Amino acid sequence: MSKIETAINLLLQEAEDLRIGSSISELDHLPTALEFCRDYFAKNSPVIIRNALSWPAIGKWTPDYLIKKLNDKIVDVAVTPNGYADGLATQKGREYFVLPLEKQMKLSDLVQRLDDPMGAIHYVQKQNSNFSQDFPELGSDLVISDLDFAQQSFNKPPDAVNFWLGDERAITSMHKDPYENMYCVISGYKDFILIPPYQLSCVPRSTYPTGIYKTSDSGQFYIDPLTDEDGVELLTEWVSIDPLAPDLAKYPEYARAKPLRVRVHAGDVLYLPNYWFHHVRQNHKCIAVNFWYDLDYDSRYCYYRMLEELTSQKRSQPKTT
Amino acid sequence: MSKIETAINLLLQEAEDLRIGSSISELDHLPTALEFCRDYFAKNSPVIIRNALSWPAIGKWTPDYLIKKLNDKIVDVAVTPNGYADGLATQKGREYFVLPLEKQMKLSDLVQRLDDPMGAIHYVQKQNSNFSQDFPELGSDLVISDLDFAQQSFNKPPDAVNFWLGDERAITSMHKDPYENMYCVISGYKDFILIPPYQLSCVPRSTYPTGIYKTSDSGQFYIDPLTDEDGVELLTEWVSIDPLAPDLAKYPEYARAKPLRVRVHAGDVLYLPNYWFHHVRQNHKCIAVNFWYDLDYDSRYCYYRMLEELTSQKRSQPKTT
Ligand SMILES: O=C(O)CCC(=O)C(=O)O
Ligand SMILES: O=C(O)CCC(=O)C(=O)O
Repeated sequence: MSKIETAINLLLQEAEDLRIGSSISELDHLPTALEFCRDYFAKNSPVIIRNALSWPAIGKWTPDYLIKKLNDKIVDVAVTPNGYADGLATQKGREYFVLPLEKQMKLSDLVQRLDDPMGAIHYVQKQNSNFSQDFPELGSDLVISDLDFAQQSFNKPPDAVNFWLGDERAITSMHKDPYENMYCVISGYKDFILIPPYQLSCVPRSTYPTGIYKTSDSGQFYIDPLTDEDGVELLTEWVSIDPLAPDLAKYPEYARAKPLRVRVHAGDVLYLPNYWFHHVRQNHKCIAVNFWYDLDYDSRYCYYRMLEELTSQKRSQPKTT
Repeated sequence: MSKIETAINLLLQEAEDLRIGSSISELDHLPTALEFCRDYFAKNSPVIIRNALSWPAIGKWTPDYLIKKLNDKIVDVAVTPNGYADGLATQKGREYFVLPLEKQMKLSDLVQRLDDPMGAIHYVQKQNSNFSQDFPELGSDLVISDLDFAQQSFNKPPDAVNFWLGDERAITSMHKDPYENMYCVISGYKDFILIPPYQLSCVPRSTYPTGIYKTSDSGQFYIDPLTDEDGVELLTEWVSIDPLAPDLAKYPEYARAKPLRVRVHAGDVLYLPNYWFHHVRQNHKCIAVNFWYDLDYDSRYCYYRMLEELTSQKRSQPKTT
């Protein structure tokens, strides 16, 4: 075994022995700011808080309520043939990282399409957008100060408040974000699969040509490769594995990963710490709002960057069968 | 450059670019528990709090006061020829890690010896001992609840409360501890040199035979090598570098270290996070009390263990000139 392999094995073994990242903590009440800071934020450790939110939105928000309340507003929708907005797909034997087709449509049209089991898959996923600016009418249904216990650790207002409404076939593929994430389910449930950042060596990644879904005149989806102004392919690094059907023959390193699973119900809040890999599914017409806070860079992040470098060979030369 | 060197360089460079570990934060008032948790504990980042303590001990504790108050009690003293209790020393061309000669003497005798500039060097350094058990008479001069702001992050009582009284020639050589450390100077000052744990690759270490100081009939100090029951030398891993006079020809990696210096005055508290390397000096008859809390093992610790493994070659094969 090489020195790097020995060192990475030790990292994984220590975490296993110390039962770090071995389960997701669960609370049945909101923690104090200090408890949250000490037990979860400081340790980069997720926690699910059950029945945390007694927001007006809960029990009230349904697709019909939103249509009425938002006066059938036009919304941005990610449309895909397979449910994967921001995910991998193959065209003519080539694997791409593919962005969704972005459409604008009335909320009522969206809901109609969600109810069509044969059509394309629609997902409202207003990432990097500001919920309070786009949907001011809905603001009073949330009690954002309920998240103060967490915001006091992040010590800044959210960088983005995102709104999610989607098809049960919509899937957010495994990825990570440079954010502290407070994920609040309003209606239905979301199923998260989480992998801690220090298990990076178990998570195969590769660099893919980037494409975007388009539809032909006949309505068929195809992948349109993206290039820069000089016609050079745009490349995106993405996680190669599908945690729902991991190909261990191709990616044997994933056998060592210890994915955690948690279902977040309406009223629950999941704290998803920065750089944790996550894969997300949902029930039909699940509605959620989440809060992204810029992370504070600290020595743990620097260690992560070192690990990224140590595992970079796998990244640029993915194993093939 | 090897992949390991590249990765470690990236770790150091990221920290430098993000200004992590580039200075010691200073406060002029006690932080709230949440501030301490968020800004220092969570980030494994030291802080010095100036004039934090308005304890009766401050201004009151002098060697004479202690003699009187403790009824000239017998105390354990570490005695060395050179000031280094737990440090490196050479005998007949061989470098040892040497434990001090442990003596018991009356406090008044100790103070007399501290005042003898020609004699051996004496240091009361009650590590792993419990101050409150050994010196119950002094307990009421401290207001330990003043440290609640920190204890609420550590979430447990101190594992040890240590008392320090020593000669200005006494030096604690560079080392690290698996503790969160709240260091309170009562009288005089202490000079700390600190190096963050992620700079491990810059801190040369080696494995040394272990000895203990003894004195011959004529009163001469010598190093008595320690062995196990089978006569096999006991080995101790220790930091090879003297930060007061670093031998960069022998240990060029230390040039990349960024040691931080801070003087802790009477009434100040230094939070020294777990695994930070520290080297400590003091003024004559400096009196201090510190609190060690067991660390909570988290993913940062696991990353540190990985780094230890990656740098282990240097450890077992120290470079020679
Ligand atoms: O809800 C989803 O589908 C994805 C959520 C997500 O990736 C995020 O909040 O960062
Ligand atoms: O005060 C000293 O001499 C050393 C202190 C120390 O090493 C510690 O508190 O861990």
